[in-house]
Amino acid sequence: MSVKLPLPPGATLGILGGGQLGRMLAQAAARLGFDVAILEPEQDSPAARVAAHHVVGAYDDAESLKALAKLVSVVTFEFENVPSAAVELLSGLGVEVAPGAMALAVAQDRVTEKSFLNQAGVATVAFEAADSPESAVAAVAKLGAPCLMKTRREGYDGKGQMWVESAAAAAAAFATLGGKPVILEAPAEFVRELSIIAARGRDGALAIYPLAENHHEKGVLRRSVAPAKVTSETAEQAERIAAKVLKALDYVGVVGIELFELSDGKLLVNEIAPRVHNTGHWTQDGCEVDQFEQHIRAVAGWPLGPTAAKSNVEMLNLLGDEIEAWPKFSAEPETRVHLYGKREIKPGRKMGHVNRIRGPV
Amino acid sequence: MSVKLPLPPGATLGILGGGQLGRMLAQAAARLGFDVAILEPEQDSPAARVAAHHVVGAYDDAESLKALAKLVSVVTFEFENVPSAAVELLSGLGVEVAPGAMALAVAQDRVTEKSFLNQAGVATVAFEAADSPESAVAAVAKLGAPCLMKTRREGYDGKGQMWVESAAAAAAAFATLGGKPVILEAPAEFVRELSIIAARGRDGALAIYPLAENHHEKGVLRRSVAPAKVTSETAEQAERIAAKVLKALDYVGVVGIELFELSDGKLLVNEIAPRVHNTGHWTQDGCEVDQFEQHIRAVAGWPLGPTAAKSNVEMLNLLGDEIEAWPKFSAEPETRVHLYGKREIKPGRKMGHVNRIRGPV
Repeated sequence: MSVKLPLPPGATLGILGGGQLGRMLAQAAARLGFDVAILEPEQDSPAARVAAHHVVGAYDDAESLKALAKLVSVVTFEFENVPSAAVELLSGLGVEVAPGAMALAVAQDRVTEKSFLNQAGVATVAFEAADSPESAVAAVAKLGAPCLMKTRREGYDGKGQMWVESAAAAAAAFATLGGKPVILEAPAEFVRELSIIAARGRDGALAIYPLAENHHEKGVLRRSVAPAKVTSETAEQAERIAAKVLKALDYVGVVGIELFELSDGKLLVNEIAPRVHNTGHWTQDGCEVDQFEQHIRAVAGWPLGPTAAKSNVEMLNLLGDEIEAWPKFSAEPETRVHLYGKREIKPGRKMGHVNRIRGPV
Repeated sequence: MSVKLPLPPGATLGILGGGQLGRMLAQAAARLGFDVAILEPEQDSPAARVAAHHVVGAYDDAESLKALAKLVSVVTFEFENVPSAAVELLSGLGVEVAPGAMALAVAQDRVTEKSFLNQAGVATVAFEAADSPESAVAAVAKLGAPCLMKTRREGYDGKGQMWVESAAAAAAAFATLGGKPVILEAPAEFVRELSIIAARGRDGALAIYPLAENHHEKGVLRRSVAPAKVTSETAEQAERIAAKVLKALDYVGVVGIELFELSDGKLLVNEIAPRVHNTGHWTQDGCEVDQFEQHIRAVAGWPLGPTAAKSNVEMLNLLGDEIEAWPKFSAEPETRVHLYGKREIKPGRKMGHVNRIRGPV
């Protein structure tokens, strides 16, 4: 069984995940004439409310995956922790999953990710793996303190990580993070956090957006400014990194690559997200083809679209009860409002974002 | 029972009609955080496939309207032939319907429409009403031949109308059009067809887009070029017309006003559509806030958004099997593709449109 690509308008496209990224992907897909089927365990989700079909089920539930496979021939996802068994099951049913299993495997394990990047010729901070209190102590002794301990798998938005101030403290930190395999990372002496959103088509073509400058608070993205003010050398360095990553992963779709800019101008990759990315939301109002349509184009086997910025954009996440300021944002002529339809406000929860237009590029 | 406005994100907004205009309205509403409920008799429709709720039923079916009213407090529509009884029923249930009953009444009857326009100080072609073969003959004698006979109600895209070449031919034409009440219109000696898309908020604020220049084939819109190249006098004349129409109708929402430009620069109104309009599709890629979001903002009681054009756009309708050229359009860097998800290709059917970006304004 082989999937006929490019996927024609009128076909149904599957998305694993019912959150805001799935919602914005679904909307982009519908604009191109696709129907969308969401697989999501929650009965009521932001993405399912804008999609033609909703399979209610766990991402690793075989029956649900089979039900999805009956509807679609191409599946993508909004989050990197898609179980590899789900991808295998879908592939076995003749469904094309993009981005592929390799990108997921690399993104799901921080040690695998950094090892892969280094092998692809892309620089990261120095790191060590540890899977016991003793190896954690040894790793810190080798890297030097302070350093950052993170669980190898899962954890996002600053969760599942802590600073280790000395080799002696490493054993306790290992226990605090649950006694799971961890990565130890040398601190990055960065001057700025940047990110680059890039896409690769089924034919290997690349489409790379301008860099964004990102500001986090308590591990959560607060705002992005794009295109970032960078030298042409920095822009080209980032584009080379994106091209290496996409090619090495034989990637199809949009990737978000978080970068540290060092004082000497060198860029290190912090992490890669094999999906549309919060730091790419500015493209919705800054570019002709945004990251969501670009991702759908790539996974559907369509030609990629242009990536040049037409406007300067400041993207601001609306976290928790900040969404209650929607009347103010809606009244600002320069502000485009994107709200996710989440039912419940929780502290720090991403409820929406606004793109403030700061003039033409 | 009174509706609390502005309608907050998370609320459900109702749309009568499941076609492409309903679909694009639903997508704009979702972007602002609303859920959408579509009332549409067809089980499978372009709009329902991107909406959270679908009430399957006729627009004049009381049970269906009641079911819709249980979901929503604000209702709008994608077509002007909404039965007035439906609006009355919804209003009686405490639902806010926008645009209102007056706009529908005016738009549903060509004689009422032109009389209303003239009373509001807006020029149209000369016209006469007729409801019998004899009065049709008399009307043509008064107006002069040739003139255009149209049914007073219904008819769109060139349907339900014919040219009358002499007073003697009027009786036969009246029979050909079904013996229904008609309007006779003097020919407009126009040099161009223009249109203006404008919105009025709940607070009476106006938002008026630049003019579009429109080209029809066999009564169906083929393409629009916007912003149209017009003198500032013409632009101001059109804005005055839009302001008069919106104010006289105490209008809430987006209106499409079709104009004839005469050789002396004078503008006549051809017709008004109390809804988003095919000649406003260029705003999706030419403006920061498009006509769909603008309409949702207005009916939800939000502040209106900016209307300035940032790009020159050529909008091309994809009629019938022209949609089969989607691979070509999808490969054009300057072309933004909007497809409606209609299941069946029929000759002349609006299957999608493309906006070709022709550089910054």
